[in-house]
Amino acid sequence: MPTAHHVVILGGGFGGLYAARALRRAPVQITLVDRRNFHLFQPLLYQVATGGLSPANIATPLRNILKHQRNARVLLAEATGLDPLGRRVILSDGDLAYDTLVVALGSSHHYFGKDTWSRLAPGLKTVEDAVEMRRRILLAFERAEWESDPSRVRALLTFVVVGGGPTGVELAGALAEIARDTLSHEFRHIQPSLARILLVEGAPRILSFYPPDLSEAAVRSLRRLGVEVQTGAVVTDMQPDAVVVRSGERTERIPAATVLWGAGVQASPFGKVLAETTGATLDQAGRVQVGPDLGLPGHPEILVIGDMAHFSRGLATPLPGVAQVAMQQGAYAARLIRNRLLGRTAPSFRYRDYGAMATIGRHAAVADILGVRFSGYIAWLAWLCIHLVQLVQFENRLLVFAQWAWSYFTFNRAARLITYLPSADRADTAKN
Amino acid sequence: MPTAHHVVILGGGFGGLYAARALRRAPVQITLVDRRNFHLFQPLLYQVATGGLSPANIATPLRNILKHQRNARVLLAEATGLDPLGRRVILSDGDLAYDTLVVALGSSHHYFGKDTWSRLAPGLKTVEDAVEMRRRILLAFERAEWESDPSRVRALLTFVVVGGGPTGVELAGALAEIARDTLSHEFRHIQPSLARILLVEGAPRILSFYPPDLSEAAVRSLRRLGVEVQTGAVVTDMQPDAVVVRSGERTERIPAATVLWGAGVQASPFGKVLAETTGATLDQAGRVQVGPDLGLPGHPEILVIGDMAHFSRGLATPLPGVAQVAMQQGAYAARLIRNRLLGRTAPSFRYRDYGAMATIGRHAAVADILGVRFSGYIAWLAWLCIHLVQLVQFENRLLVFAQWAWSYFTFNRAARLITYLPSADRADTAKN
Repeated sequence: MPTAHHVVILGGGFGGLYAARALRRAPVQITLVDRRNFHLFQPLLYQVATGGLSPANIATPLRNILKHQRNARVLLAEATGLDPLGRRVILSDGDLAYDTLVVALGSSHHYFGKDTWSRLAPGLKTVEDAVEMRRRILLAFERAEWESDPSRVRALLTFVVVGGGPTGVELAGALAEIARDTLSHEFRHIQPSLARILLVEGAPRILSFYPPDLSEAAVRSLRRLGVEVQTGAVVTDMQPDAVVVRSGERTERIPAATVLWGAGVQASPFGKVLAETTGATLDQAGRVQVGPDLGLPGHPEILVIGDMAHFSRGLATPLPGVAQVAMQQGAYAARLIRNRLLGRTAPSFRYRDYGAMATIGRHAAVADILGVRFSGYIAWLAWLCIHLVQLVQFENRLLVFAQWAWSYFTFNRAARLITYLPSADRADTAKN
Repeated sequence: MPTAHHVVILGGGFGGLYAARALRRAPVQITLVDRRNFHLFQPLLYQVATGGLSPANIATPLRNILKHQRNARVLLAEATGLDPLGRRVILSDGDLAYDTLVVALGSSHHYFGKDTWSRLAPGLKTVEDAVEMRRRILLAFERAEWESDPSRVRALLTFVVVGGGPTGVELAGALAEIARDTLSHEFRHIQPSLARILLVEGAPRILSFYPPDLSEAAVRSLRRLGVEVQTGAVVTDMQPDAVVVRSGERTERIPAATVLWGAGVQASPFGKVLAETTGATLDQAGRVQVGPDLGLPGHPEILVIGDMAHFSRGLATPLPGVAQVAMQQGAYAARLIRNRLLGRTAPSFRYRDYGAMATIGRHAAVADILGVRFSGYIAWLAWLCIHLVQLVQFENRLLVFAQWAWSYFTFNRAARLITYLPSADRADTAKN
């Protein structure tokens, strides 16, 4: 057991990892607990889903990142409960005492109560999600190639992306690029470029957290790529081979073999554990209401950061669940812990909004950086640079850049593997 | 339906792919049928299993390879039956007429009738196999780190590799490298370098297809890396936490959490279909006896190549199931088909043995190239060059080289992801 002040951090995403790194010179012992052995750069997960990058390109083993940080250890485990009075967190096997607990368990997609939709329309939060999306996208083209019924071909070549946030926009753009460029000449029967790609958003505009003119620029870029954008449109039903979309008074059933989910987000279920054991309040998305210093009311030693935190002090809407917020909150949590150990107080958390960006296909993007708004090729280059620089490992940066450059000039996407076939599609013995 | 002579090739491995490529200027229509959408460079699969490369680094979409070969089309399907009189192959959905059928469905590992061992000791034939091996290897170190019982720690840090062929030797060498170099400084409780790595081979020597002095050089290299090599030793039983090894009169139970299978090989079950429908003869390993021109007796229009073929004409032992044989047989099959269309006869198939090689850890290898035998660093460089050159896609070559160079100088292995946790280890909702 550590004799120094023991900081237990739950979750090795942007929030947890930045907190751990920012405590590297603090007189504390850190235990970083994660169910997975790697940190995942989620903003590029859509590239894995569309065959542009491999999972390992955007993931780095947590142990490797913290290898030389002697005050930190990594524990592969899942947090299942909490004893706030005894200051112990209960793990899948055993439990762990803490002096300060930083909860940074992120969020997952959810389906507004329609749980059966999860099988029909995979979301994009984990490596496995991305590989599953990739499998479905590629398999749809394969099946279309050998289908003789024209209406089935049409359905197989129809891709519906639900949700017009950055994930949905980036997915739709990458899909258009695959259909128009990557797969050209690869099929003999179908024309992949005739694929129909539909982006459905319930709000009046896509990228609704961005300034309106950037939303419009994004729509223009998407339309140029051949993506149909439907705003103010809601998916009301989903079947294995179709979605039903309601737009105003009009309801349409769209035959589509592939539906990708980029819509609802729900905070980690560990929020419920916090609510039950500490009396913390959850909002509708399952996020934990935190105080000005990200602490829980009555439990200043428990900090909640990132996608799990509902922080709305002085703001019209709570901070969004994006990497920037998580990183800044992780750094703040570390500063707060250091200050407390020195007997100092710390000012409240304040988010600095450096802007937001989203990429659309091969060389278009929209960006709003420190209030400067731009779109098109320059925005795309800025997006590429910022994302490359933020990748944790230099090796990853190098390889992602090489892969990107190659894909860019050849229009190819190398990581187009259909793996993990469901058992119906897959025999277990032969190689074939 | 194709009007030209229709060649159906089952399997996109080395044999099938080389046959298809070699027919690119022939007046034929080619349909290449594979269950998977990619060609896999199996000789480097052990690098995926040990976190050095990503699956996409050693796999290339078949459609992409054959993109500009206008006389070839690719079909994602599984061959399940055959009508040799009607000259139709029966697929998972539908069937396909052929004029010439090239069967190149490869082989899979088998467990000498002990089917329960497959869950305990994964083999290494597919991408999924490699990812599963990687998961088990990495998870063993993770579990050891948080285990307090010293005998459990010992078992978790014991890795048994069954089978001393190239796969087993390469796996054992890579495991030693991970334990001694890659993971150093990453753990706080265990010392990964104390891991015990055991290579168990039933024959009197490892790499038994190679000249004896190379086998000895390989043993010396493995021992230098800390691998224990047991020859003349047979696994007689396997439990979830131990293997039983019999060596002469002595039987030992070795507690080990991780057992990797590099032993038995069985030809594709489609061999049985061939035997039942054409009367072809199978050998003990399920391989199909082929004539001097790789054809089936009484069915010259059906050729069997690669791991599935038992070809022993003028040889003491049948040709081994290695990539070189498959490639040469693929090229021969193409030549035979071209000759027949021209009304010419073709000489019998003759294998040119250019040699064999295996790599052992970071910079040792053994090689026997055109009768010249060498080992050590030079052999390792030769191994690296030959394998890089053989990768189908230039992009893959580039990226694999970059990744290799980086790993070599940093001792790191970037693709160390524990993915596809079995459901017991994995919750489906939270990110964590």
